[in-house]
Amino acid sequence: MFKKVLIANRGEIAVQTIRALHELNIKAVAVYSTADADSLFVKMSDETVCIGSGQPTDSYLKMEAVLDAAALTASDAIFPGYGFLSENSEFAELCQEYGIKFIGPSAEVINLMGNKANAKATMKKLGVPTIPGSDGYLKDLDQALELAEQIGYPVMLKAAAGGGGKGIRQVDDSNQLCKVYEETKREIKLSYGDDHLYLEKDLSDSKHIEMQAIADQHGHVVYFPERDCSLQRNHQKIMEESPCPEISDEERQHMGEVVVNAMKGINYENTGTFEFLMDRDHQFYFMEMNTRLQVEHTITEEVAGVELIKAMIKVAAGEDLPFNQADCKAKGYALECRINAEDPAKVFQPTPGTIEFVHFPFGTKGVRIDSGVETGSKISPFYDSMIAKIIVHMPTKKDAVAKMLRALKEFEIKGVKTNREFLVDLLQDQHFLDGDFNNLYVENHFLKEWVKHHDK
Amino acid sequence: MFKKVLIANRGEIAVQTIRALHELNIKAVAVYSTADADSLFVKMSDETVCIGSGQPTDSYLKMEAVLDAAALTASDAIFPGYGFLSENSEFAELCQEYGIKFIGPSAEVINLMGNKANAKATMKKLGVPTIPGSDGYLKDLDQALELAEQIGYPVMLKAAAGGGGKGIRQVDDSNQLCKVYEETKREIKLSYGDDHLYLEKDLSDSKHIEMQAIADQHGHVVYFPERDCSLQRNHQKIMEESPCPEISDEERQHMGEVVVNAMKGINYENTGTFEFLMDRDHQFYFMEMNTRLQVEHTITEEVAGVELIKAMIKVAAGEDLPFNQADCKAKGYALECRINAEDPAKVFQPTPGTIEFVHFPFGTKGVRIDSGVETGSKISPFYDSMIAKIIVHMPTKKDAVAKMLRALKEFEIKGVKTNREFLVDLLQDQHFLDGDFNNLYVENHFLKEWVKHHDK
Repeated sequence: MFKKVLIANRGEIAVQTIRALHELNIKAVAVYSTADADSLFVKMSDETVCIGSGQPTDSYLKMEAVLDAAALTASDAIFPGYGFLSENSEFAELCQEYGIKFIGPSAEVINLMGNKANAKATMKKLGVPTIPGSDGYLKDLDQALELAEQIGYPVMLKAAAGGGGKGIRQVDDSNQLCKVYEETKREIKLSYGDDHLYLEKDLSDSKHIEMQAIADQHGHVVYFPERDCSLQRNHQKIMEESPCPEISDEERQHMGEVVVNAMKGINYENTGTFEFLMDRDHQFYFMEMNTRLQVEHTITEEVAGVELIKAMIKVAAGEDLPFNQADCKAKGYALECRINAEDPAKVFQPTPGTIEFVHFPFGTKGVRIDSGVETGSKISPFYDSMIAKIIVHMPTKKDAVAKMLRALKEFEIKGVKTNREFLVDLLQDQHFLDGDFNNLYVENHFLKEWVKHHDK
Repeated sequence: MFKKVLIANRGEIAVQTIRALHELNIKAVAVYSTADADSLFVKMSDETVCIGSGQPTDSYLKMEAVLDAAALTASDAIFPGYGFLSENSEFAELCQEYGIKFIGPSAEVINLMGNKANAKATMKKLGVPTIPGSDGYLKDLDQALELAEQIGYPVMLKAAAGGGGKGIRQVDDSNQLCKVYEETKREIKLSYGDDHLYLEKDLSDSKHIEMQAIADQHGHVVYFPERDCSLQRNHQKIMEESPCPEISDEERQHMGEVVVNAMKGINYENTGTFEFLMDRDHQFYFMEMNTRLQVEHTITEEVAGVELIKAMIKVAAGEDLPFNQADCKAKGYALECRINAEDPAKVFQPTPGTIEFVHFPFGTKGVRIDSGVETGSKISPFYDSMIAKIIVHMPTKKDAVAKMLRALKEFEIKGVKTNREFLVDLLQDQHFLDGDFNNLYVENHFLKEWVKHHDK
């Protein structure tokens, strides 16, 4: 087992990793920017190295600085967390060159999964359902009509040169397709100077369902109960639940088998998450893979009854997985809310500042709070605005929501505005309670009503 | 369901009860003494009534003041917690007279179980093993010899007028009994003016094993996995584990059946705990029953996967038990440490004062902290010195101990001395880790070594 691990991250994930390391009797090394000098994770670690200024490019993203700190402190391994260098294949490769274990998958796999087209092609080959559509550009209207018939309407016509939601047209039937095909080509030619189109199944009415898995170096692979992360704003997850109450045990097992097979097919080591779009018929389609730990791994820890940071460290050190598939059945229901320093009434703009006082609502069974701040901490404009994750784990969704509401209402913070009230309202929304929401629900429905109400 | 519940208690149990009430959408009324005016539980409750000065007899023990506060606030029920009025049958009776539901068993049952002799006789009748011994005083040596033979040596000769560990003599065989019988009678006659003796099985080499159960008003009774509370000093529990790793599933089930049968036999309503002595052969003997919630109910909540304060409230309101026996199987292992404001190096004398700063080591899966204090809180000399309970719940004792050690080491408090270091050392003691300890282990062995070591 490692003797000393460097954490190439900051904030709450650094704090939780220090705790995991200490529980495993491993020394924790923190690297930090000058903006984080007084942070909780710096105070809690055994050794610290300042690696630059607050700008991430001058510190947490500076590969050589991180690696030099690891060499300087004689660290055996680097824990990347999420964000920053966690999905940087060059960094993973450099770690190998330096003889320091990168706690995550190989550089090759990070690279493969980092390219969306390669990832999709690889997954398709391994039997993972991918979003049906044209392989490459459409030749002509006849091909488009034939393909759309195969896939089923509605479909999406997409400009090859488009992006960010632009150059996309929803098509409901063949008549409409005949009508808009040439028209769209002309329009996008004008906009982008390129009239190549491709066609995909319309999955805008879908849920974001993701499944995490983990593999050791000895061929053992285990999947975990899925997470529903559909409640998003601006592609940022707001709250996550696990398991998705609408998914049956059989569906879960099927998804798990697909995931484990894919993990084996790409020789995956350590943990990763498959993000899927799931339509109303519960068909799921591969979107992308995150080759790292995610923020919302906490709810998986609760329902599966495992500790993932510890498992990642053990697996990276060459140990067998500390649990098997049967251990990881979904037990109860878990929900996570992300408390951010942001102002929902002002388009969620970040509210950096100093936390003058914070009261965390820990206590009683079923509440867990993962945070990296305390009274006096500064929320820096350089980094993401997450202050804390409140996680509840209860037998049922109803119980969990009641507990989360209590915790959110008890939570008190002075000095910075947060999204707490927004979360309290979303938790009481009937669509959320009924599971009747898709990826666009918050943005297109809930948020509009909420803003109207709060403008009064 | 109740609309408003008054909490006739203070500190952490008041805080946890407020949380439970809020999760059930019930208003929480706090009564408090002037010494507690700035306490967390006062801040967190919906309504508050000051009922007197810091002296418990002038506030938390003043029945009329508590009942007047309940009437004043139109509370439907009173939650007694532990200590104070929680096992006072007169108070339970007064609640009934005032038309306020006492959340606990009936006054009759509290009264019955509050008298040790009656409790023992009742339990014996209901088939609960009681400590074998003479029913009443010994007539003569012959009777003593016969009885000792039946019970098995060693036995204890006890002065009827003794108490507090005095007037007790351990007897290892019949020769010794013959030799000391008249001698002891003469001695105690001189000491107490009364030479009545009784005889009991010697259970000094036993563990304190207790089992909690709960009954609703509709005949449903459920028992919970047992707790091992043997680690005590001066009859104060230091840390508790559940389940006791040395007890088998069959033994647990047998004890549970005995407990459930006794609960039914006395028409028990709500929760209570049977305290047993368990000898090396795992024979268990009734000591007493606590007709209230105990401090260490937290570890039961963790391993059984239930919430007991909520269940108590539901049952008192006439609802069915919210779980059944099968739900309450032991899952994993839970451990509680009590952080007290006391100085182990000075015979554990209380260290009242102001908490200038406290950092609670919450975060990561499996840690729970129930506390009633925050930075700035005062530890009053009027009340018990408990600052916080740290509870860990993990798959195994080994994992739980590692997590508890991390949490204890991370826990930071300034302004008052605590027993933290003592707990850290006890957690690493091989006898504790091996389960090789009895009720006297801390007092007679561990503590002596610890004091020696710390005197250096």
